[in-house]
Amino acid sequence: MKIILVGANGTLGKHIRKTFQEAKHEVISVGRTRGDLQVDLEKPESISKLYEKTGEFDALVCAAGDVAFAPFKDLTLDQWNFSFRSKLLGQIQLVQQALPYIRENGSFTLISGILAEAPIFSGVAASTVNQALEGFVRAAACELPKGLRINLVSPTVLKDSLETYADFFPGFPAVDGLSVAMAFQRSVMGIQTGQIFHVGF
Amino acid sequence: MKIILVGANGTLGKHIRKTFQEAKHEVISVGRTRGDLQVDLEKPESISKLYEKTGEFDALVCAAGDVAFAPFKDLTLDQWNFSFRSKLLGQIQLVQQALPYIRENGSFTLISGILAEAPIFSGVAASTVNQALEGFVRAAACELPKGLRINLVSPTVLKDSLETYADFFPGFPAVDGLSVAMAFQRSVMGIQTGQIFHVGF
Repeated sequence: MKIILVGANGTLGKHIRKTFQEAKHEVISVGRTRGDLQVDLEKPESISKLYEKTGEFDALVCAAGDVAFAPFKDLTLDQWNFSFRSKLLGQIQLVQQALPYIRENGSFTLISGILAEAPIFSGVAASTVNQALEGFVRAAACELPKGLRINLVSPTVLKDSLETYADFFPGFPAVDGLSVAMAFQRSVMGIQTGQIFHVGF
Repeated sequence: MKIILVGANGTLGKHIRKTFQEAKHEVISVGRTRGDLQVDLEKPESISKLYEKTGEFDALVCAAGDVAFAPFKDLTLDQWNFSFRSKLLGQIQLVQQALPYIRENGSFTLISGILAEAPIFSGVAASTVNQALEGFVRAAACELPKGLRINLVSPTVLKDSLETYADFFPGFPAVDGLSVAMAFQRSVMGIQTGQIFHVGF
């Protein structure tokens, strides 16, 4: 299977790449600045250019996209718009623009996160965007052509990220990157569509 | 209670206005072009001007905000951005910008809809935005100061709108405007926060 992995060099992306490579899939690693190819999720035209370079493929896997963190009262318009443009619209565009390139019965697997359901201080934009992605995936699944599938992986905080983020997630369970990578594998190799795969909660 | 009602002249807004007026509340009717005061939800600066005119109040109720409808494959960037700007960011800004004006123990009640959970053809932007609002309300409820509350009313299609929209909602239950208005009343006069009030489904 030819798999396009966006965010391949991130904390989570590295685990996903390893998992798919060990299963003998061809993984095209895409990063903002590193990897086989580059993409800037905030720029829709950068996504078109990516697919012109990848050509046909079987699965799009995304472990990238940013949101702004700030106390609710301080969140600026720019921070809201950045959050919508990057993790939300960026992933939506990865799906829409892939339609001419992805092969029949292919799949999309996007990334959300536990903040969709469990708010933390300064995380209101993350909760909003992650929940939006759940609505998007459930609805898009019903309209995708060519037998295409789409799912969302929603992990709790990664063990690998605890050093940086532990203070933001008091009492939250943490999960190892391999478990999250397995949820991506389950989405890509399985038969379900329109599903949210929670990992670690 | 002094209640700011955005979308007061809409199909649903009329029912909400009647319900609160019958309960002897002071309702400031806000519309895009009609009402006591005007606001354009797509323009954050128009929201600041609105609150300069309303001054202090006890509750903000919103029954307004638009999203684009189109088959998923045809949804343009402009349509996505319009949907985020109007029903999503517009309602978020109504909340954020109200913080200096709304009185202690006041409340916000926003509007979502059944498409958050039940996709229809051409409704993927609506599903995305409505679900985003659920994440927003749940998270914002945890950070609001001054004992403020925030809830979301999520109705199925309105009976009053069936003439126009029946073909989009095959087999969906429809609900009368009064039942939806009662959910707004329950949010404003009750004690709950961070809740989604489903009406008619």
